[in-house]
Amino acid sequence: MSQLQNDLFLRACKRGQVERTPIWIMRQAGRYLPQYRAVRDKYDFLTMCKTPELAAEVTIQPVDIIGVDAAIIFSDILVIPEAMGMKLEMIESKGPKLFAPIRSENDVNKLKDVDPSKDLKYVLDAVSLTKKELNSRVPLIGFAGSPWTLMTYMVEGGGSKNFSEIKKFIYNQPEAAHKLLNKIAKSVADYLSAKIEAGADAVQIFDTWGGILSPGDFEEFSLRYIEQVISQIRRNDEPVIVFAKGVHYKLEKLAGCGADVIGLDWTMELGKVKEQINGKIALQGNLDPTVLYAGKEKIKSEAVKVLQSFGNGSGHIFNLGHGILPDVDPENAKFLVETVKEESKRFHRKDAE
Amino acid sequence: MSQLQNDLFLRACKRGQVERTPIWIMRQAGRYLPQYRAVRDKYDFLTMCKTPELAAEVTIQPVDIIGVDAAIIFSDILVIPEAMGMKLEMIESKGPKLFAPIRSENDVNKLKDVDPSKDLKYVLDAVSLTKKELNSRVPLIGFAGSPWTLMTYMVEGGGSKNFSEIKKFIYNQPEAAHKLLNKIAKSVADYLSAKIEAGADAVQIFDTWGGILSPGDFEEFSLRYIEQVISQIRRNDEPVIVFAKGVHYKLEKLAGCGADVIGLDWTMELGKVKEQINGKIALQGNLDPTVLYAGKEKIKSEAVKVLQSFGNGSGHIFNLGHGILPDVDPENAKFLVETVKEESKRFHRKDAE
Repeated sequence: MSQLQNDLFLRACKRGQVERTPIWIMRQAGRYLPQYRAVRDKYDFLTMCKTPELAAEVTIQPVDIIGVDAAIIFSDILVIPEAMGMKLEMIESKGPKLFAPIRSENDVNKLKDVDPSKDLKYVLDAVSLTKKELNSRVPLIGFAGSPWTLMTYMVEGGGSKNFSEIKKFIYNQPEAAHKLLNKIAKSVADYLSAKIEAGADAVQIFDTWGGILSPGDFEEFSLRYIEQVISQIRRNDEPVIVFAKGVHYKLEKLAGCGADVIGLDWTMELGKVKEQINGKIALQGNLDPTVLYAGKEKIKSEAVKVLQSFGNGSGHIFNLGHGILPDVDPENAKFLVETVKEESKRFHRKDAE
Repeated sequence: MSQLQNDLFLRACKRGQVERTPIWIMRQAGRYLPQYRAVRDKYDFLTMCKTPELAAEVTIQPVDIIGVDAAIIFSDILVIPEAMGMKLEMIESKGPKLFAPIRSENDVNKLKDVDPSKDLKYVLDAVSLTKKELNSRVPLIGFAGSPWTLMTYMVEGGGSKNFSEIKKFIYNQPEAAHKLLNKIAKSVADYLSAKIEAGADAVQIFDTWGGILSPGDFEEFSLRYIEQVISQIRRNDEPVIVFAKGVHYKLEKLAGCGADVIGLDWTMELGKVKEQINGKIALQGNLDPTVLYAGKEKIKSEAVKVLQSFGNGSGHIFNLGHGILPDVDPENAKFLVETVKEESKRFHRKDAE
């Protein structure tokens, strides 16, 4: 089906045979790259998201510079709350701010239903343009936040330390919370469907804040809506990846959510999880992002440990266990990519399957 | 041995029979109590730590006001780095700051060895005075940070988002890191021994930042030194509790570290962990602290879920899965304590054992 020159990533998502383990890096289009900073110096973050030429440029940078096996469209998960009518600002070094945070059912009712083809046309244009400029070299990943993670930002009004407001909201206004989650889930499903239609070869759902919930609350407020989104995405064979940071306690259930791949943070052991989920789904991850602060010898030995933990056979996409940090030396990221490409071959030899 | 009127907490730590599940709350002597804030309005945080009368006063408040089954001495884990020679400031709403953070072996060499009887006499005096003023009503817990957690603060110079500096330190200067961990471990063991000598009936080691490490790094940089501390504490029968937040991946090993009790955060399932560790050690926890934002009905149902998850029999100390939050209504904390006292009885009936 795919006309890609390098479709290792897509094959691995479907647990098909590969000659080596594919690798991409969360936040690979980001501040650690001087070429990214050169663009960012001239435009603010949201302008970059909203200008297809700029988004395409920084999306493709890591493919050229560090040699990853997939591109991920440069954007932000908070474009959805913005499209629903919330005012969004990205405040340097302070993180995102959503004004007039949601605190009641009345607030929920005021939110718009998102029509991606109008409200988020700039993302779809960025996807089409990137796809064209990538010229079939590697697959392009689209992404969105999970309903729970987006709701957390919308109720907290930004990042949070204790997540007091979102917890008050779900415990004291559970009906309003579920109403909001349903509304977001529909927008996310439509948005990811539109991205696929525009050319995305795969999509990733980020449940960044799943891990702040107790196991029971995770099922009620997060997992259920991830399942809803996945079941409603209009796709052919495009894989869906779910990255749920800190969700160590519901991996079996997560593995059954309809996704093709689960992304793991660096506190999990790939081999153990592979066993636990009985090889039913591909795994993505999970090198500790701070290992890229180390010297090459350490980077290599830790990368090999990750490969060994997964072991022989297909169904592994190498990645960090969280986004690459802004002060990492790009040479180290490049070295990691080269190391994984070389060292992973032996886990895919015919006699190793 | 104990002459305490209420020794349920100590019995539960040793998995002895109890009539009901004991409860205390991490950070129970804290800002959510108006009586605490009345003291705090007059004195800064470190003055309160360093004035035995004030420390004793706020330590005892939650015993009187919300009815917990144990007191924990009011103090801070960073008194050890301060005693080692670092300048410490508590900046309101910004958290602690340690000046001139440790970044090299040379910095490590400059740190003093701590003599608790001199350098931390004010804590020992606070323990003795509190013990006297408690008048044998409930046991008194002493505490310290784990070597890893203290080193994290000493290298980062305070809290952190990405923990970049501490990770650079352990990956690029592992020898200096181990030297520092050894030095801290000795101070912590001496400090906890001195607290026991001054009257503490139990001690808790907080490994607040254990969970930022990958499983292998946790063993090398945290667990090993927790074991070292515990083996060096001079004690009779006083229980040792280890609370390692986010350490879901090494529970079996943690259960064998020499502690009597492991404290669990709210993302773990007590019943599963009990099974996993084969009932070899008592468990403390683990209600989601944000449940105290909810109404009484929800607080009760969630508290009962925690009790049910542990199930019948001894070896459970009820607590939150992390510190109580500053904006919780004290009435809700009191209601939780009453609920646990009442609802836990049925899990300890003779025919339920």
